[in-house]
Amino acid sequence: MDTSKEYVRNVWKNRRNRLVMNEKTLHKISYGLYIICSKKKDKINGQIANALFQVTAEPPTIAVSINKQNLTHKYIENSRVFTISVLSEKTPMSFIGTFGFKSGRDIDKFKDVTYKFGNTKAPIVLDYSLAYIEANVIDKIDVGTHSIFIGKVVDAEILTEDTAMTYEYYHKVKGGISPKTAPTYSSMVDKETKKEERKMDKYVCKVCGYVYDPEKGDPNNGIEPGTKFEDIPDDWVCPVCGASKVDFEKKE
Amino acid sequence: MDTSKEYVRNVWKNRRNRLVMNEKTLHKISYGLYIICSKKKDKINGQIANALFQVTAEPPTIAVSINKQNLTHKYIENSRVFTISVLSEKTPMSFIGTFGFKSGRDIDKFKDVTYKFGNTKAPIVLDYSLAYIEANVIDKIDVGTHSIFIGKVVDAEILTEDTAMTYEYYHKVKGGISPKTAPTYSSMVDKETKKEERKMDKYVCKVCGYVYDPEKGDPNNGIEPGTKFEDIPDDWVCPVCGASKVDFEKKE
Repeated sequence: MDTSKEYVRNVWKNRRNRLVMNEKTLHKISYGLYIICSKKKDKINGQIANALFQVTAEPPTIAVSINKQNLTHKYIENSRVFTISVLSEKTPMSFIGTFGFKSGRDIDKFKDVTYKFGNTKAPIVLDYSLAYIEANVIDKIDVGTHSIFIGKVVDAEILTEDTAMTYEYYHKVKGGISPKTAPTYSSMVDKETKKEERKMDKYVCKVCGYVYDPEKGDPNNGIEPGTKFEDIPDDWVCPVCGASKVDFEKKE
Repeated sequence: MDTSKEYVRNVWKNRRNRLVMNEKTLHKISYGLYIICSKKKDKINGQIANALFQVTAEPPTIAVSINKQNLTHKYIENSRVFTISVLSEKTPMSFIGTFGFKSGRDIDKFKDVTYKFGNTKAPIVLDYSLAYIEANVIDKIDVGTHSIFIGKVVDAEILTEDTAMTYEYYHKVKGGISPKTAPTYSSMVDKETKKEERKMDKYVCKVCGYVYDPEKGDPNNGIEPGTKFEDIPDDWVCPVCGASKVDFEKKE
């Protein structure tokens, strides 16, 4: 069936589709929000992930997609274990910022964070976690920029009956954004944000990309909706990554 | 590092963990609800899936976990294409029942369903779908009872701005259940349901496993909460799979 004529036709078809495809469709997929942790000898690290699902019920196995650039990817490859903390809706943006927008190569993400070591000897983040799962890696699939790790579940526990944070809740209610290393990152969002800036005088954090929208303010940190960026007190920090006000720039 | 002593210790550890592990933890993972369709020559089929995520942003690729027993699995293996319809919260249980609890080996699932053929020539279900994605299979990973298909997205479109159905909404609001072939199926749920039955006089559908709970009734189909199973009219059918009242049995 795979004649070269058909091959050429498919290449052409794929190219055409890439041009007309609505990439925002991919944002209609539902996800939770998780911290994936691993270790390398006595070093530990963790990161935010959303691309995670259960693949089989018997035995219970989990698949998670991790960017190859991330330190946690390196640690999982090395130790072949990972833990999953299921984040609650109550998780503050600053906490997601630490695990999602900073690298364990630069900071100690576990400073001031409550965690424990599991049966796998990898750390399990307990703050804002309603449940955790521990897994031994049984397979790794190369999918280009990311690897999918398949993990056999070796331990799992529910901690609270809180509601799980969904990706939709994070984006819509919390105003969250995706880092460039996320499977779901879309450059189209950037372009659209830029367009809106011109009318709205939003400011963007140069560290993590968080956009301050004066219409929404930052009510969790005492900034009322309708507050201009210029009128925010100087000791205010980026709610996602903790960068200071001078680290923001007006979007062009 | 993989000494036989360590191996034995791990086996023992895993066995112990299996006994104490809280399998309900896995229900804390968030999912959407999708219809996955494929084709084999001029035959078409589709099924419900929840285990689906985007694996890479560039190029856009999607992973989905499908049970090897399912007809759709066979069709995807054959044609190496699949489509995804993202289901809206408005999707009725009977529609989910047709695609989730019946086999295309027994019935024509597309009877009375609006669908179109996509660029991949596979069918795309349009009823209750807020968006669709088409993909060419680029990899298949064997994970025991299931395969994970990795698909390169070749087309994607948003159809309506409806809210996507989440697995949580399906279970909590709609009272939905998981078929035995789902990655997230848990035999523990069955055991717990059995325990509750004794007090409540619930009835279970022998075809799909739907449990009629007299406390909840079936308000979408005119059965008020508080209606005993015995008092339901004889023309009432299972809201999930359409089986008739005589196909129900009292749970022991």
